[in-house]
Amino acid sequence: MIVITSNAISEDRLSEIVGHIETQGVKTHISKGTDRTVIGIVGKADPILAEQIRQMKDVEDVIKITKSYKLASRDFQPNDTIIDIKGVKIGGDNLVIMGGPCAVESAEQMDEIAAIVKAAGGQVLRGGAFKPRTGPYSFQGVGVEGLEMMAEAGRKHGLLTITEVMTPEYVDVIAEHADILQIGTRNMQNFDLLRKLGEIDTPVLLKRGFSATYDELLNAAEYILAGGNPNVMLCERGIRTFETYTRNTLDLTAIPVLQQLSHLPVISDPSHGTGRRELVETMSKASVAAGANGLIVEMHTDPDNSMTGDGVQSLFPDQFTSLLQDIEKLAPLLGKKFDIIKEPVLK
Amino acid sequence: MIVITSNAISEDRLSEIVGHIETQGVKTHISKGTDRTVIGIVGKADPILAEQIRQMKDVEDVIKITKSYKLASRDFQPNDTIIDIKGVKIGGDNLVIMGGPCAVESAEQMDEIAAIVKAAGGQVLRGGAFKPRTGPYSFQGVGVEGLEMMAEAGRKHGLLTITEVMTPEYVDVIAEHADILQIGTRNMQNFDLLRKLGEIDTPVLLKRGFSATYDELLNAAEYILAGGNPNVMLCERGIRTFETYTRNTLDLTAIPVLQQLSHLPVISDPSHGTGRRELVETMSKASVAAGANGLIVEMHTDPDNSMTGDGVQSLFPDQFTSLLQDIEKLAPLLGKKFDIIKEPVLK
Amino acid sequence: MIVITSNAISEDRLSEIVGHIETQGVKTHISKGTDRTVIGIVGKADPILAEQIRQMKDVEDVIKITKSYKLASRDFQPNDTIIDIKGVKIGGDNLVIMGGPCAVESAEQMDEIAAIVKAAGGQVLRGGAFKPRTGPYSFQGVGVEGLEMMAEAGRKHGLLTITEVMTPEYVDVIAEHADILQIGTRNMQNFDLLRKLGEIDTPVLLKRGFSATYDELLNAAEYILAGGNPNVMLCERGIRTFETYTRNTLDLTAIPVLQQLSHLPVISDPSHGTGRRELVETMSKASVAAGANGLIVEMHTDPDNSMTGDGVQSLFPDQFTSLLQDIEKLAPLLGKKFDIIKEPVLK
Amino acid sequence: MIVITSNAISEDRLSEIVGHIETQGVKTHISKGTDRTVIGIVGKADPILAEQIRQMKDVEDVIKITKSYKLASRDFQPNDTIIDIKGVKIGGDNLVIMGGPCAVESAEQMDEIAAIVKAAGGQVLRGGAFKPRTGPYSFQGVGVEGLEMMAEAGRKHGLLTITEVMTPEYVDVIAEHADILQIGTRNMQNFDLLRKLGEIDTPVLLKRGFSATYDELLNAAEYILAGGNPNVMLCERGIRTFETYTRNTLDLTAIPVLQQLSHLPVISDPSHGTGRRELVETMSKASVAAGANGLIVEMHTDPDNSMTGDGVQSLFPDQFTSLLQDIEKLAPLLGKKFDIIKEPVLK
Repeated sequence: MIVITSNAISEDRLSEIVGHIETQGVKTHISKGTDRTVIGIVGKADPILAEQIRQMKDVEDVIKITKSYKLASRDFQPNDTIIDIKGVKIGGDNLVIMGGPCAVESAEQMDEIAAIVKAAGGQVLRGGAFKPRTGPYSFQGVGVEGLEMMAEAGRKHGLLTITEVMTPEYVDVIAEHADILQIGTRNMQNFDLLRKLGEIDTPVLLKRGFSATYDELLNAAEYILAGGNPNVMLCERGIRTFETYTRNTLDLTAIPVLQQLSHLPVISDPSHGTGRRELVETMSKASVAAGANGLIVEMHTDPDNSMTGDGVQSLFPDQFTSLLQDIEKLAPLLGKKFDIIKEPVLK
Repeated sequence: MIVITSNAISEDRLSEIVGHIETQGVKTHISKGTDRTVIGIVGKADPILAEQIRQMKDVEDVIKITKSYKLASRDFQPNDTIIDIKGVKIGGDNLVIMGGPCAVESAEQMDEIAAIVKAAGGQVLRGGAFKPRTGPYSFQGVGVEGLEMMAEAGRKHGLLTITEVMTPEYVDVIAEHADILQIGTRNMQNFDLLRKLGEIDTPVLLKRGFSATYDELLNAAEYILAGGNPNVMLCERGIRTFETYTRNTLDLTAIPVLQQLSHLPVISDPSHGTGRRELVETMSKASVAAGANGLIVEMHTDPDNSMTGDGVQSLFPDQFTSLLQDIEKLAPLLGKKFDIIKEPVLK
Repeated sequence: MIVITSNAISEDRLSEIVGHIETQGVKTHISKGTDRTVIGIVGKADPILAEQIRQMKDVEDVIKITKSYKLASRDFQPNDTIIDIKGVKIGGDNLVIMGGPCAVESAEQMDEIAAIVKAAGGQVLRGGAFKPRTGPYSFQGVGVEGLEMMAEAGRKHGLLTITEVMTPEYVDVIAEHADILQIGTRNMQNFDLLRKLGEIDTPVLLKRGFSATYDELLNAAEYILAGGNPNVMLCERGIRTFETYTRNTLDLTAIPVLQQLSHLPVISDPSHGTGRRELVETMSKASVAAGANGLIVEMHTDPDNSMTGDGVQSLFPDQFTSLLQDIEKLAPLLGKKFDIIKEPVLK
Repeated sequence: MIVITSNAISEDRLSEIVGHIETQGVKTHISKGTDRTVIGIVGKADPILAEQIRQMKDVEDVIKITKSYKLASRDFQPNDTIIDIKGVKIGGDNLVIMGGPCAVESAEQMDEIAAIVKAAGGQVLRGGAFKPRTGPYSFQGVGVEGLEMMAEAGRKHGLLTITEVMTPEYVDVIAEHADILQIGTRNMQNFDLLRKLGEIDTPVLLKRGFSATYDELLNAAEYILAGGNPNVMLCERGIRTFETYTRNTLDLTAIPVLQQLSHLPVISDPSHGTGRRELVETMSKASVAAGANGLIVEMHTDPDNSMTGDGVQSLFPDQFTSLLQDIEKLAPLLGKKFDIIKEPVLK
């Protein structure tokens, strides 16, 4: 940590600040330049110390040299985290495909879509039973009974399942039904929810807040890891910019950056990242080329009549199937393993 | 609602779409231009209908002419909402000043600061007992016992109190201790929390998400209003932009815009809005000139030793006092009432 | 300047980097922490050096402690720049009001509007003869003959004039006709234009680029100052954010920040900053409260028939007049001088 | 074009607005809804008309259904533009690689780098002779003599050349030396420069402004096309967002979007788009997967001593060479042609 003092700091004030810092169990190292004096702090400082110093009179800036997250960092764990869920491996050179509708609508729908996901080569079935919606008058999801519909379809077709959890009190019941818990973009900094997820060991897919920095995403992951749950995947799903043609701006550079800074798997969501069906296939391939450890893609058999507005970004089944065939060819050139199992779907 | 169809739509597909719309109990009105055909929808449409239509094949865009929120809108209630809490009026031409530390630290601290807020002319004491923090290793607040410290200081000095609630399960206990519940920027779209707040009648100060649009803020307020709690204040606290010199970019235009679109009071938070003490006084005055119904300002007697990093944006007591004197002079020129009561503080 | 090296730098590489730096005529000062080694650079470094070091292997970051601009900084010149144009003072505690149409349309229009600006208390007449337009098929301005129309109206009514210059080759002819040259938001980093403006001494109003940082704006001003022209005003005119309700997001915090960092006058443009007439008066007052040294406001006698689309943000004459009366009352409370001259307009 | 009128418009005002519109040679079509009346405009309207109507009293919004650019649109020209420069084809299913240093430094440097670009399979040599720099004290480029150095290196090694032009007066001399003129991000809306480029027929690579929308980029291209120069390539080079870890946020979705909206080739610039060498290779591959018609990549033999700060984003020669080998394998899977010519470099 480096403390930059103001232009006109007096010797007395400098001593006062240094004194305050040294009472915190770290050493200092003073360097006087032409314009300013800089205080270097040697030793592991409490994160609160940086915040306190920053606000002291005659302190212009405090620069943290070490990162504020630890367990999530590649420095802490050099090897990729690989999460193994019932034999499906997520992370490293494995490529996982999650597909399904925005919202669970009925048992028949889930059964039909699960069959398509499985046949196409996907490993995980997605679907929302509780939907976060901007306004109170929009469809809010079918609730707990949707969890059972999805779990049943997953079991029948041999797929893992992923669904969103929005509030701490629902974590336990949803974890009983789903293999992966998804945290939505608006909840990336719902700290009580993150703390609750740290107490279980069900894998979590943590979506980046639509205006969150990489650092904030990794700090959010740190909440879960620090609580004791090591099974965290990060998800890039588009950020908010000035461009309105697309629903969000999918930041694919997040993928290699997060993989450098962290050992956690990074999944891309080109459906929410673009908000337009005609862009999803191209941006799925670009995500794989950017090194994504997986994709989460919306697909619907009848988007015209989907119950949320997100049908507009859902692929048709044939598009989904053909996309996975393309990815199967691309994957080996990009150092990833993805094989569509040719055997018939188990029934 | 207006539906814009694609360039090359066939007569058959147009009939199909019109047919689908009319089964929803509204009428249509077709207008053929040189390039495109536009379908006007007459009558009150279900909000889900717009979302469904948008995703239909051969639909390019759906433009909603009426707003997605209703109870929060100025159209629905032309007169300003005035919230009366124990005789303190918030809204209309009243100006309310909320002051205090970022975090509750001790009973003595709250007592000392409350005396200053009261003497300076403030009406509400602020202070966080539960703190939302980016990383898990930062100070997270003193918790429930802080609520009692603040409530006691408020009672003693004749001030209302405001504190943040972060999760639905704490709403009831916090509402027992505080006069106003604050929803932080990261929780503006924590829909379960909003729904819970709709079930009580304690006034709520709803902070704008740091990347939320005006429309999203008003929709978040709508969740609370639709639940049955009419006592909602909106709060502008700065948005995230590319500029990093300030912690956020305080969007003062939000104040007159929200007051045009809605009848709810709008409070400005220049402390978080700038993140720098030396800007808070100027931006407080600018907030009043922009028409704010109140200010929420951080003030600390010893910012060097505050327990969160937010001391850097806290005014010193004499700055807070002198700011309120300046505002007392400005207010009448801006159509607002704000009088510092000269009588001694009650003890 | 401080150089932060990578975690795993070798002693040899460290010596190499230090050696390279010291050949540039500055001294170094090495500080070894638990995690990293930091190199402090003592002495005035060439700005290119920072850029070179940043790209060296095993360098993680370079932190500049001193600013990249010099002549524009408050450190270099502690007192406010006050620009005196024919007796009108801009800067310090003077408040200057610039008003007029978006585009010069005819001599009659300019005469009529100049009379209103003068009677209301304004000191400067604005109007564009060359218009920067997003698309090539929009109205591009009346050109050189518009300059004469505006100059004539200014002379007749005793007003200074300001108009935009878009390209270096037009600087001389426009400087012959106008008292102040305006650089539009899209040209803030048109470096050839800035260099050309440094060669003359006509005052320049430099608008902030719609996505420019404070630092970039001050560096753009530095181009003009370094060329030899000290008469520069900065202008906040709104930045681009995710919010689309307003045309731009007027960043009023820019005003006190720029005044702290620099001695140059700061003018606010609430017309482009909001893009909506109904917000201009409120945001004008807020600009004055934020400490603006002046305002540039669009006003039109017949906005329905203005030749650009900017009529939507133009005040009607009676709104302009009443705004200046309000500002006359507010100014003394905010430490600014603004007096509407009561004597009849000279004809 | 659709005009949405305000809630409370009178019949008289409606007639007035309709009357004004119809004097402009288009027809109207009125549609009365429950809440509002909407005026549809049938026929090709002048673009200025939309702007005028938008600012009329009782008009809430004007929605343009047709695009403001024409020649750049896919509607106008359904087939891809393919620009043929001395036999190198840009556009369609061809993949073009442009490589070289940020700035031209010497004849020897350009010769050495050109040999590497050619041997690796690149077709175009890049290098800046005039550099746009944020501050006036940074290296501004070697100027006209750099043009000759680059042209000579291109001729010798059989490469096309591309260099930046910053101001209209230099267009002719630069066009004599270079095969492609590059317009930098800060000049995307330098309209005088765009107009000048419309008067020549040298191909132009137009970089997206760092905060420009897709629509604005296409309108900027329209200036050049409307002037008579059909040889325009668009370039995505990263936009400015709140994230500061990368220099810019590379918006790869721009590639398929621009290719849908327009027939012009789209080139990706992962060097400026990320600003970090370690991300360039991955984001180059992702650009190709997103459908880019080409890449422009910085490469330097001695980045530690490059004369601008951009060495930090320059690939080393062996990285550049190996990247092109990877792309050669990926291209056919993505429907693109890119073959590294095996024959020895001509000398």
